[in-house]
Amino acid sequence: MVVLRLPSLSSLFSPSAAISRRFPEVLRSRHHVRRFSGVSAQSTAEKEASPETEPVRVAAQKDRIEDQSVTPRSQDFNAWYLDVIANAELADYGPVRGTMVIRPYGYAIWEAIQDYLNVKFKETGHSNMYFPQFIPYSFIEKEASHVEGFSPELALVTIGGGKELEEKLVVRPTSETIVNHMFTQWIHSYRDLPLMINQWANVTRWEMRTKPFVRTLEFLWQEGHTAHATPEEAEKEALQMIDVYTKFAYEQAAIPVITGRKSKVETFAGAVRTYTIEAMMGDRKALQAGTSHNLGQNFSRAFGTQFTDENGQRQHIWQTSWAVSTRFIGGIIMTHGDDAGLMLPPKIAPIQVVIIPIWKKADEKTGVLNAASSVTEVLKSANIKVKVDDSDQRTPGWKFNFWEMKGVPLRIEIGPRDVSSGSVVISRRDVPGKQGKVFGISMEPSILVAYVKDKLDEIQSSLLERATSYRDSNIVDVSSYDELKEAISQGKWARGPWSASDAEELRVKEETGATIRCFPFEQPQGMKTCLMTGDPAEEVALFAKSY
Amino acid sequence: MVVLRLPSLSSLFSPSAAISRRFPEVLRSRHHVRRFSGVSAQSTAEKEASPETEPVRVAAQKDRIEDQSVTPRSQDFNAWYLDVIANAELADYGPVRGTMVIRPYGYAIWEAIQDYLNVKFKETGHSNMYFPQFIPYSFIEKEASHVEGFSPELALVTIGGGKELEEKLVVRPTSETIVNHMFTQWIHSYRDLPLMINQWANVTRWEMRTKPFVRTLEFLWQEGHTAHATPEEAEKEALQMIDVYTKFAYEQAAIPVITGRKSKVETFAGAVRTYTIEAMMGDRKALQAGTSHNLGQNFSRAFGTQFTDENGQRQHIWQTSWAVSTRFIGGIIMTHGDDAGLMLPPKIAPIQVVIIPIWKKADEKTGVLNAASSVTEVLKSANIKVKVDDSDQRTPGWKFNFWEMKGVPLRIEIGPRDVSSGSVVISRRDVPGKQGKVFGISMEPSILVAYVKDKLDEIQSSLLERATSYRDSNIVDVSSYDELKEAISQGKWARGPWSASDAEELRVKEETGATIRCFPFEQPQGMKTCLMTGDPAEEVALFAKSY
Repeated sequence: MVVLRLPSLSSLFSPSAAISRRFPEVLRSRHHVRRFSGVSAQSTAEKEASPETEPVRVAAQKDRIEDQSVTPRSQDFNAWYLDVIANAELADYGPVRGTMVIRPYGYAIWEAIQDYLNVKFKETGHSNMYFPQFIPYSFIEKEASHVEGFSPELALVTIGGGKELEEKLVVRPTSETIVNHMFTQWIHSYRDLPLMINQWANVTRWEMRTKPFVRTLEFLWQEGHTAHATPEEAEKEALQMIDVYTKFAYEQAAIPVITGRKSKVETFAGAVRTYTIEAMMGDRKALQAGTSHNLGQNFSRAFGTQFTDENGQRQHIWQTSWAVSTRFIGGIIMTHGDDAGLMLPPKIAPIQVVIIPIWKKADEKTGVLNAASSVTEVLKSANIKVKVDDSDQRTPGWKFNFWEMKGVPLRIEIGPRDVSSGSVVISRRDVPGKQGKVFGISMEPSILVAYVKDKLDEIQSSLLERATSYRDSNIVDVSSYDELKEAISQGKWARGPWSASDAEELRVKEETGATIRCFPFEQPQGMKTCLMTGDPAEEVALFAKSY
Repeated sequence: MVVLRLPSLSSLFSPSAAISRRFPEVLRSRHHVRRFSGVSAQSTAEKEASPETEPVRVAAQKDRIEDQSVTPRSQDFNAWYLDVIANAELADYGPVRGTMVIRPYGYAIWEAIQDYLNVKFKETGHSNMYFPQFIPYSFIEKEASHVEGFSPELALVTIGGGKELEEKLVVRPTSETIVNHMFTQWIHSYRDLPLMINQWANVTRWEMRTKPFVRTLEFLWQEGHTAHATPEEAEKEALQMIDVYTKFAYEQAAIPVITGRKSKVETFAGAVRTYTIEAMMGDRKALQAGTSHNLGQNFSRAFGTQFTDENGQRQHIWQTSWAVSTRFIGGIIMTHGDDAGLMLPPKIAPIQVVIIPIWKKADEKTGVLNAASSVTEVLKSANIKVKVDDSDQRTPGWKFNFWEMKGVPLRIEIGPRDVSSGSVVISRRDVPGKQGKVFGISMEPSILVAYVKDKLDEIQSSLLERATSYRDSNIVDVSSYDELKEAISQGKWARGPWSASDAEELRVKEETGATIRCFPFEQPQGMKTCLMTGDPAEEVALFAKSY
């Protein structure tokens, strides 16, 4: 019996006691705005005496130390993750177990993902469309491995309009079945191929162990579905789309994923081959961040989706499907975040630059706010996403904390002395303290814009470099099962030659908790020997514990 | 017992026998590409003898007459509507009764609607976010009139992960209840207000009588939800958003909606006041195309959503909600379409200009295709949405029909003689035949771009003017119930002073089939007398039959 816990939020997102203990913290941090120092910028400033020492900035530093509210990442990674989600206002818990409300700031990251991928999908010849989310139960049963994979996770509608339905309806966990039902009606001849579509939609999987963004009962995603006349075309498409995801991960999200092929055991329910991008999180667990499946003719045979080829012969179509979901946001948080909170790559940051005007006396306020507003206009007209936080409610220090928590890549401070000198102070989110702070950047539009763009690029590269070196220093090349076990027990990823059986793969999982994340596309040259059996092996596999 | 009809598609979208009879037609027209003449442009052209008479264009005219496949609008409006949806490839029937697959061309219209509204919502201070679609059943029961309005239409999830749930889950029909549940956690003080959000989502209403786009079991929409500190602010917001919808209807969709307030009988379940935009379809039935609700404190009282005001007093928040759905696409089809198919206003057309290259001999092909491709580039770089149909599979005539069916505002034809003279032929979708066709428009980029932009503007205005004069010629001012009955029986809208009771309003509905669509914002001056009771009346009401 699944219990709906309403309105208590305890244990909504995790089964472990360690996490349950964290929930009072998470609940409290919902109100974190009230927990930070509530003195206004102006009144704090008025307390300061010396006009020489940039008093407000000093006060700001004090606030910061008092206001640390996120569990240190090193102390409890999962608690840190939940704290960041709450404090950066990314998401909240829905009333139904395992569901999530995506708050505006979290959703804006999703919109950035959508904006990029939508363009790439269209450039590669796909059209958006929309399929109904209710799928007749009988559809799910048509493809044998598909039903096996998904039936334990289904949410079923059994009542509609007050009456019990004759056939239960599945709330889509994925759309291959209904897509094939429609493709069968639309595809007649080779002239109708390739048929390449995508939909942005919500999907439902009745997961028992949930975690915001990473695994929720309902989530948002895009699912591409394509139909082709030949297996070669389908394979090319599946590879093309995993390449789109890989580029997105590296170039936009600054996540150095490892792209490769899933083992047979880990292949999608109904696919012939699954390609994946695997990302290393800050706790060194792997996150499967996107997949692309070559479905072969599995669904077309189950649904009778055929076309007449150029020789007049009836053939089953060859298909692919591929998806990226709101899980990716979890990947961004867990790749880049630190003890101060979220850290967003500039290319997907909803706000790239936050401007904090700082004033002491009432007669300084106008000048500072005017300068902030003119800097805002300058940056906006250069297509930089900028926000001014000019509220009277909070101290500059509170604001520094808050926008660091939200992961905004650059902060511009403008005080009375900056106004006099026609310059601003700029701080990098990714370089803490004095090292990341530069004084005296000219407000002159061309200089300022060039500087800001340059820094944003630098941060983007720097986040990728940092994540790449973290990843590489945590992957161990192994040549025996003992070495593999040692690496996994240290929390690292193990990479080694593998040609053993599915049973041996499952044994590794049972004994170490690690699974084959993928056979990476990038493979070392030369002869290899299976780490488990000593038999010749064609490829190295990557093993890791995963989300 | 609700019967799932699988995979038979008969009667999926309408209960009436007249429509059922139409379904073989609709089914057939799924394959309409195969029903049009299948001779290629080249081979048709080769059959022609005289090089002097623009032979392909003559052949094209012939094709057109043979290929009429849509039921004439005047003969059977509903059959025409379904034919257009099938032939213009806007939507198809899902496997579950009353569900709809939105095909790429239909979805592209939805994307145009989203693109415009999304900008306006953000400009007016709203953020996008996402709420879970599963709502505990108990939530729906909290607001008395809300449960009364929605409980007959609910789809309920009763099984999750193979187990029966303790509490049934409602698949959202609208989100006021879950929004209030979350607002209660987020809103504490007047500083948290206003809270203004929007979500793009799917919603489910178990409707018995369905019709593609107009009323489907599942549909796509946006739903805005806002919370305010005062009733005045909530009222202002509700009015602001109906104004956004009104402008969208007039300026983008070229639909001259009448904006006004709903009668008490027609107000949204749970609202204090509902504002609406009402559009007159080609059969003169009204379509409610968007609504904005002032919810007062109905939901905040039901859910205990309170804030502390500036004086430290606890108060319930004041709320609004507002929505536009994929129904609007039905409104566009039924406002502008004609016997040749869809007719799209340029501002929301996925393709504004289609280019048809026409060649006779193989040696002409290259020149014509090159010209088509250079014209395409010229228009694209001027941000005009353009498509070249250069397939060898179809005759120019077939293509003319096909793109007229799809409602593309402008067609550019380029033949060998056009290439020689450096000019093109341009035809307007909204002006049939020779009258809408202009020869010899120069290919010189600045001239061509200016001409095309000018014509697109002209078409945009012309569609609005035409719809406005159609609307105005079908609204009758009435001063007695007899006059009202007469107007309604002629299929027109009746406008007359009204201050009678809810019971009288329901009597009108029972006796004439018409309902009060709204009390229009635009009201005549002077003293008025209720058409039903003879009592003084403050306002005129608009009566019509509706979808």
